[in-house]
Amino acid sequence: MEDPGWLSPREQGAWRAHLAAHRLLSHQLDRELQAFGLSLNDYEILVNLSESPEHRMRMSELADATIQSRSRLSHQISRMEAAGLVTREDCEDDRRGTYAVLTDLGWDTTQRVAPEHVASVREHFIDLLTPEQVATVEEIYTHVVDHIHSIRSAK
Amino acid sequence: MEDPGWLSPREQGAWRAHLAAHRLLSHQLDRELQAFGLSLNDYEILVNLSESPEHRMRMSELADATIQSRSRLSHQISRMEAAGLVTREDCEDDRRGTYAVLTDLGWDTTQRVAPEHVASVREHFIDLLTPEQVATVEEIYTHVVDHIHSIRSAK
Repeated sequence: MEDPGWLSPREQGAWRAHLAAHRLLSHQLDRELQAFGLSLNDYEILVNLSESPEHRMRMSELADATIQSRSRLSHQISRMEAAGLVTREDCEDDRRGTYAVLTDLGWDTTQRVAPEHVASVREHFIDLLTPEQVATVEEIYTHVVDHIHSIRSAK
Repeated sequence: MEDPGWLSPREQGAWRAHLAAHRLLSHQLDRELQAFGLSLNDYEILVNLSESPEHRMRMSELADATIQSRSRLSHQISRMEAAGLVTREDCEDDRRGTYAVLTDLGWDTTQRVAPEHVASVREHFIDLLTPEQVATVEEIYTHVVDHIHSIRSAK
């Protein structure tokens, strides 16, 4: 049997630490956002919309930006619509298209939550790193993102 | 109003790259495991059990090891039980406890899938990094894991 290229202890340590840290960090940030009635996924959608012109994005663009399937996003947007944070609007120039649009409540919520959330991201991630490590994280993970995008577009 | 400590462009870049890379990588690995009828979460459970004495773990330990709630794990184990990969057994020395135990099919599946999965982890993550970057990832994310465990145990 060929050597299947098992990971070295350090490689395995890096991979497992990456998985564990991501999961723990997501739980922690989710938990802190729950005080505002939001999940981390809700918050990412609010931020994407709040940074877009007229606080609106096509559902297809929003799905790409938040890296989830359109069906999953659609359920998510329904929940956020029920909470009064966003609405859906038909695209005037494209019958098949729908926009997700931030409501006033959605905008106010984003403004109120953002400083707290950023403080959490600092406390549990960024401020644990040296500036060199921050630069390395950006470099490594941008490389991974580019790699996976290139695989997907090659299909 | 006080400066809420907004992230610098590099810090924000690092944080967003971390989130995006993790999500894309999880999807990619999930997709490749689907060829074997498994999710990434299934695979992690199989690996944890296959590395344990007698291929069994208490449900509470398995929940901790895979960083998920006991109720979520319980649903997951029910699905894997239906697929014939694991069984549940009562603990003889603890009436309230239950073990998750790998079946022969679960063991065979783990042995068959592991080389393919490790090749995916190499292709989409480890082999994109220099050895120094692998060491940095291990260091950074182990620090994050320790930090979050220390917050949790302080409560």
